[in-house]
Amino acid sequence: MISTACLETVEKSGVSAPRAVTMDKIASLCKRRGFVFQSSEIYGGLGSCWDYGPLGIALKRNITEAWWRDMITAREDMVGLDAAILMHPRVWEASGHLAGFTDPLVDCKKCKHRFRADQLTEPKCPDCGGELTESRNFNLMFKTFMGPVEDTASVVYMRPETAQGIFVNFQNVLNASRLKIPFGIGQIGKSFRNEITPGNFLFRTREFEQMEIEFFVKPGEDEKWHQYWKETRFNWYLKYGLTASRLRLREHGKDELAHYAKGCADVEYEFPFGWSELEGIANRSDFDLKQHAEFSGKDLSFFNEETRERFVPYVIEPSAGVGRPLLAFLVDAYDEDTAEGEERVVLRLDPRLAPIKAAVFPLLRKAGHPEKAQEIRDVLKEHFAVTYDQAGSIGRRYRRQDEIGTPFGITVDHDTLKDGTVTVRERDSMEQVRMPVDRLVDELRARIAAGRAPVVASS
Amino acid sequence: MISTACLETVEKSGVSAPRAVTMDKIASLCKRRGFVFQSSEIYGGLGSCWDYGPLGIALKRNITEAWWRDMITAREDMVGLDAAILMHPRVWEASGHLAGFTDPLVDCKKCKHRFRADQLTEPKCPDCGGELTESRNFNLMFKTFMGPVEDTASVVYMRPETAQGIFVNFQNVLNASRLKIPFGIGQIGKSFRNEITPGNFLFRTREFEQMEIEFFVKPGEDEKWHQYWKETRFNWYLKYGLTASRLRLREHGKDELAHYAKGCADVEYEFPFGWSELEGIANRSDFDLKQHAEFSGKDLSFFNEETRERFVPYVIEPSAGVGRPLLAFLVDAYDEDTAEGEERVVLRLDPRLAPIKAAVFPLLRKAGHPEKAQEIRDVLKEHFAVTYDQAGSIGRRYRRQDEIGTPFGITVDHDTLKDGTVTVRERDSMEQVRMPVDRLVDELRARIAAGRAPVVASS
Repeated sequence: MISTACLETVEKSGVSAPRAVTMDKIASLCKRRGFVFQSSEIYGGLGSCWDYGPLGIALKRNITEAWWRDMITAREDMVGLDAAILMHPRVWEASGHLAGFTDPLVDCKKCKHRFRADQLTEPKCPDCGGELTESRNFNLMFKTFMGPVEDTASVVYMRPETAQGIFVNFQNVLNASRLKIPFGIGQIGKSFRNEITPGNFLFRTREFEQMEIEFFVKPGEDEKWHQYWKETRFNWYLKYGLTASRLRLREHGKDELAHYAKGCADVEYEFPFGWSELEGIANRSDFDLKQHAEFSGKDLSFFNEETRERFVPYVIEPSAGVGRPLLAFLVDAYDEDTAEGEERVVLRLDPRLAPIKAAVFPLLRKAGHPEKAQEIRDVLKEHFAVTYDQAGSIGRRYRRQDEIGTPFGITVDHDTLKDGTVTVRERDSMEQVRMPVDRLVDELRARIAAGRAPVVASS
Repeated sequence: MISTACLETVEKSGVSAPRAVTMDKIASLCKRRGFVFQSSEIYGGLGSCWDYGPLGIALKRNITEAWWRDMITAREDMVGLDAAILMHPRVWEASGHLAGFTDPLVDCKKCKHRFRADQLTEPKCPDCGGELTESRNFNLMFKTFMGPVEDTASVVYMRPETAQGIFVNFQNVLNASRLKIPFGIGQIGKSFRNEITPGNFLFRTREFEQMEIEFFVKPGEDEKWHQYWKETRFNWYLKYGLTASRLRLREHGKDELAHYAKGCADVEYEFPFGWSELEGIANRSDFDLKQHAEFSGKDLSFFNEETRERFVPYVIEPSAGVGRPLLAFLVDAYDEDTAEGEERVVLRLDPRLAPIKAAVFPLLRKAGHPEKAQEIRDVLKEHFAVTYDQAGSIGRRYRRQDEIGTPFGITVDHDTLKDGTVTVRERDSMEQVRMPVDRLVDELRARIAAGRAPVVASS
């Protein structure tokens, strides 16, 4: 855990060295190397929807798996859940989304274009100068029809958050497991919000993925647990390498709090477009369980057998995106420097998150080097995501891997065929060590598990 | 690879011993132990939508991770992709879904109920005996509206298959990677079909998850690769323990083939409700890439630098569900027998798929046993999904774990405190061996990786 004092220091510092990264550079690298493509790009794209390419989905899987392992598998007080995207429409009545999950919109009476009222600076249409209608509330949930008849009785919504899937399953999980309060339920899944103004690449998208925890506690113990989760989640981003000075925990002002929230803090990262939310950690009180109990008529309280107490739990909700942390990890890892006498782009990703853990290179395209390198690649592939590259000079091959954050380069040369050793080069330090092939799996496993090494000068 | 002869034998056998499992028993176990709950159950559920509980999502993650590892990470000729669920509507014009992905429906003129015309046996309404309308085609895609205006220009569809996300990204992946034909792109993700008649628990659902591969090959080499993928995918189900005599590869008749398919075979499993499809392996020819090239105006051909040939690749598509294999693994693993003198339900899941790998038990709830057992649990938790249980007799605790497929039970007793050894009990054989605590991680890792052990008599 970090101390509150430490949190405050981080929060107040907020001043960082200038950096090479820009959003344009990130988006260009993502497209060029296959991290992220525009959805349906051959048809001109679809508003703010993105597809993850081979390296992007590998990075995304590493992030979600790290979250799942740290937050669920490795903890005794957490279990997982995977609720459907389509839920009963009454869920959104109870949660308040049907009535309240809206943006104020105005229409231009002349050109018929539509705008968010709270984002207009002039009382006239920004597109044609025409007169605007009164503002009205527009619900941000995507609606569709289930079953063969398109009428109001068949309307269902694509969930705007994964959280409600957890609340409606609270009693089911309790009955099926042997859990006692305090415990939490975690979930990773897609949500959909018909945002009027999406943008900033992966930052605000209409289709997005969430990693959410609802942690159920005894009323009165909620503030202690809220503090615990703020620290735990803040530290999680540090653990996987985000720069401390670009990370802060920002407490919401009273005027910012959602109607259900007793308190909330955001983990924010300093993107090139400014400080923005990665994750919100809210104290949702007993609002959701009470609403669902009322709307469903089911008892959603918890009975403590030992103390004979019955209560509706309070809920602490650490709610992270997936795209936003992924973008933060990319932005934070991006660097430009000089390596082996050449300028390079390097992604200093934590080895646990890096899409490819090691690249195997034959020094020459002859003399048995390719065969030996492929043989090593085949052994490593059983354990890690690895690649093989024989095209171009060794320097050029290093550059190619540096740019996608591959932490280790393994080169097969004349000596490999004689004494069974290879050169292992580390991405950040560019340090090269010689080691026997049969130590590679254990050595790589240990160095990946250790996380990102401090950057030291090349030896 | 299995030989064709072997496939035919399996295909023709089709006769199996009677078994204890029924769909009712599976659904009941799933609810009781937290594998699967009805979606929004507190509101009466939502038609054929299901939520995965703590054990269900653990099992599902193990299945999808096994697929991803075997089909993508461990192969040099495959990469991953993760396309958005919402795609440009032109995609579905090109793919043929907008015009052709339909079921024939009729309405009752009296009670207004709607039915699938091809499933009616009488010309009158089955609900009220009223007169029916002419049948008309009903599109199975869920539609919604993107952006603030609900009009025809803003209609988008929730994808009915993940495949099209791969086709529209073919050139992007080719440009961003260094892949050459033959290679494949794999994807795991949700799809949605507004089925008129969903059913059989997880078997046919409106919201479902797919594990799809599109493997791009040179025309003329497609039949060879089609055969390769039929064998590879059939073997994958055997590898994770489905009973060979309940698995078959069924070639589609000419009349069953989709308009785009040159050939197709289904991997079928014998569920309690009969032989049903787990996965289809189709030769889609060059239909999809040609359609998207025509509709988008983009060149979707491949140029082989070495042979100077340009062609539109043929596509072999091994397309599996996730819910169906999960249901098959559950059904196949379900057994009832006598263990340690008691009747038990046991899930003989492959250890790699089992939601929990080991349970740690203190023999007594005193004498330092619980503390020691929890200490061991904490060490194992860093490596595997494990649980701790001290409630009830050892026999009862074994039963609880047998029922959810936990392959190993570890018991801490008096001797553990003296000599640092524990008893490890295997679920299927019920064999017990004594081993030092510090060998547990390596031993469990090896025994999990080895897959399901042949069932032998208890020692």
